[in-house]
Amino acid sequence: MSLLIKNVILNGEKKDIYIEKEKIKKIGKNLNLKAKEKIDGKGKKAVLPGLVNCHTHSAMVLLRGLADDFQLEVWLKEKIWPIEKKFSPDDIYWGTKLAILEMIKSGTVCFNEMYWYEEAIFEAVKEMKISAVIGLVMMDFSSGGSKEKVEKLFNKLKNQVENIKLAVAPHAIYTVCQENLIWAKNFALKNRLLLHFHLSETKKEIEECLKKYKVRPVEYLNRIGFLGENTILAHSIWLNDKEIEILKKRNCSLVYCPTSNMKLTSGVFPYKKIKEKKINVCLGTDGPASNNSLDMFSEMKFASLLQKINEMDPTVASANEIFKIATENGAKALKIGSGKIKVGEIANLMLVDLDKISLIPNYNLISNLVYSASGDCVSDLICFGKILMRERKVEDEEKIVKNARKRSLKIIKFQT
Amino acid sequence: MSLLIKNVILNGEKKDIYIEKEKIKKIGKNLNLKAKEKIDGKGKKAVLPGLVNCHTHSAMVLLRGLADDFQLEVWLKEKIWPIEKKFSPDDIYWGTKLAILEMIKSGTVCFNEMYWYEEAIFEAVKEMKISAVIGLVMMDFSSGGSKEKVEKLFNKLKNQVENIKLAVAPHAIYTVCQENLIWAKNFALKNRLLLHFHLSETKKEIEECLKKYKVRPVEYLNRIGFLGENTILAHSIWLNDKEIEILKKRNCSLVYCPTSNMKLTSGVFPYKKIKEKKINVCLGTDGPASNNSLDMFSEMKFASLLQKINEMDPTVASANEIFKIATENGAKALKIGSGKIKVGEIANLMLVDLDKISLIPNYNLISNLVYSASGDCVSDLICFGKILMRERKVEDEEKIVKNARKRSLKIIKFQT
Repeated sequence: MSLLIKNVILNGEKKDIYIEKEKIKKIGKNLNLKAKEKIDGKGKKAVLPGLVNCHTHSAMVLLRGLADDFQLEVWLKEKIWPIEKKFSPDDIYWGTKLAILEMIKSGTVCFNEMYWYEEAIFEAVKEMKISAVIGLVMMDFSSGGSKEKVEKLFNKLKNQVENIKLAVAPHAIYTVCQENLIWAKNFALKNRLLLHFHLSETKKEIEECLKKYKVRPVEYLNRIGFLGENTILAHSIWLNDKEIEILKKRNCSLVYCPTSNMKLTSGVFPYKKIKEKKINVCLGTDGPASNNSLDMFSEMKFASLLQKINEMDPTVASANEIFKIATENGAKALKIGSGKIKVGEIANLMLVDLDKISLIPNYNLISNLVYSASGDCVSDLICFGKILMRERKVEDEEKIVKNARKRSLKIIKFQT
Repeated sequence: MSLLIKNVILNGEKKDIYIEKEKIKKIGKNLNLKAKEKIDGKGKKAVLPGLVNCHTHSAMVLLRGLADDFQLEVWLKEKIWPIEKKFSPDDIYWGTKLAILEMIKSGTVCFNEMYWYEEAIFEAVKEMKISAVIGLVMMDFSSGGSKEKVEKLFNKLKNQVENIKLAVAPHAIYTVCQENLIWAKNFALKNRLLLHFHLSETKKEIEECLKKYKVRPVEYLNRIGFLGENTILAHSIWLNDKEIEILKKRNCSLVYCPTSNMKLTSGVFPYKKIKEKKINVCLGTDGPASNNSLDMFSEMKFASLLQKINEMDPTVASANEIFKIATENGAKALKIGSGKIKVGEIANLMLVDLDKISLIPNYNLISNLVYSASGDCVSDLICFGKILMRERKVEDEEKIVKNARKRSLKIIKFQT
């Protein structure tokens, strides 16, 4: 498989990019190379690293708009959980496909997933050829969240396709006991896997941890040896200086999820302090039931503006910084692709249509992408060298929509 | 002119809408009426009231992305003002057209404008057939902001077309003296015009007012008789309880501009208090240099989520409330169209494409529009009974883009 992308704007200059298998082989002007596939940007498209969504629960897209504007406890316990319990693997398969469709259509090349029925998720990802890190979920008191399941699925799914990685995904400190957290960490280390975890999303979590373990969550996790450079911590809102120091020392990656944090009123990610410590910050949409979108463009704008108003300083969280956390930093955390466009790197690229009104005028493309555009500005998406979207067309779109709609009709019946 | 819209989803049911001249004449099932123009939604499009942008400075779209992430003073004094000074009426004409193009393509049927070279703006609006309230700007120490100009332009432009209204738009208390504010108020009353004004956007404004007039801005404006039911007050952030009481008593409309307020770190609009007092709240994008978008869908999401996180209460600013402020409340403030779809009202409608991934599944269309969609979900736009966009095609789009780009090249030269 080879792909030649002609006449695309890269850092302000018209260039060609030649891709062989999954990697960028050559970047230059007027490349005269034969390739099996070709895209011509005609000087009207810019090429950028694809976006990396570092925390989501994809199939929750089937619950989008079902319940909004409720208190967290009501939302979870009365609205979301009773329906989630009734999901079948087939629901998850089509829900994940719908989510991937939305991600592809808004420039996401890779996502970090944490949800049930991992085999169904794996199939959906594999078929749609997007890149993903699929978390093998652990949760005590749930038959679907055991150590045995993790081991079994790991052995079954490992090393199948290059664009899918597996992670161990213990849910949170309040749902996974110390023994299982330690097991998860050891299993991840032994098998060189990422650890995907919810950390300090709500104030309540801190209070309960202090009561139970006499220390704050990060201190507890540090004490049991859970934290390392393979650890990806979603939310990470309620951190004190000592905890930030530990996260730095352990070289963890943190996932800022501004939209979900605002909508569920979890709190504000301490971006400025985290940035000062040079900790790797990534961006995530969280599940589309609490966002309610998977569009990383919208997420970038929220990411910047929430920090500005929170700090009352318009200079914090600049467009360039935010674009970096949504691309390069995410790719670094997930260790999949590079988040940069250069020879030798995985070809995870988005092409954006410079004729979109939201990108005109074009003094500063990154500012336009972060502050003005929506995901609809993406015209083509390349993931691991394969074209997942061409001129906004994605394979099987109608079939996916049709099947996802069927599931949503079933969900309405669950409610009544 | 007559228009028949067939098979569109209205409040969950498939309906037809018949429009004669600028008004909705009939709504029903299977209407068998002849019409000059026809749109068939085929059951795949929903019809909703068009969005009303209650505060903007359209032509500033020519400055989009030119300067971001600066302190307000630096941004204004070093970046924006030096370029604005060099704008010609022709720049404003093309800038306004580009902004209107963006508004049409994201579902806005009417906007409340405040910017220089009002005649150029008037021409752009007239040609593009969108509805607008064009403010005749007043600002002391500027030849373009005098009472004489307002009188002259009012006499020249009044009553030309039904879809354009004029307003008197004194800029703010710190740029217009007491005598001129009183003159503006009297001129507006005499000629039954709206008054469009910037109120209490920054803390500094309050401090300076207290120093100069010994009272807070709303008290000062009330004392000179400026406030009435024709007064539209953009921003209105820094208000105390006494001021809110006065604004209620005077029946003013307030314009919440969340994105701009976050990006420029002006502060947070006191939505909850204002809503409790049942004051008319509208929504605005502010100028696209400080937003950097004119997409009211994005604005709705920011409007809700900023209030939720600020109050730490996920139940405030629900999707339904926010959709209402973006449609009905705006139409009420601008007294142009109704913001509702019913017989006898002005036909200001948007059709949305229910096959857009962001609108799937569709349990709650309003939630999807506020929390998930971007302006790209709008397929067709009808304003005063005329089709401004059909299947995302707008007249003269290429010509407008070409000319706006020319202006942006000129602007780059201004800088160097």
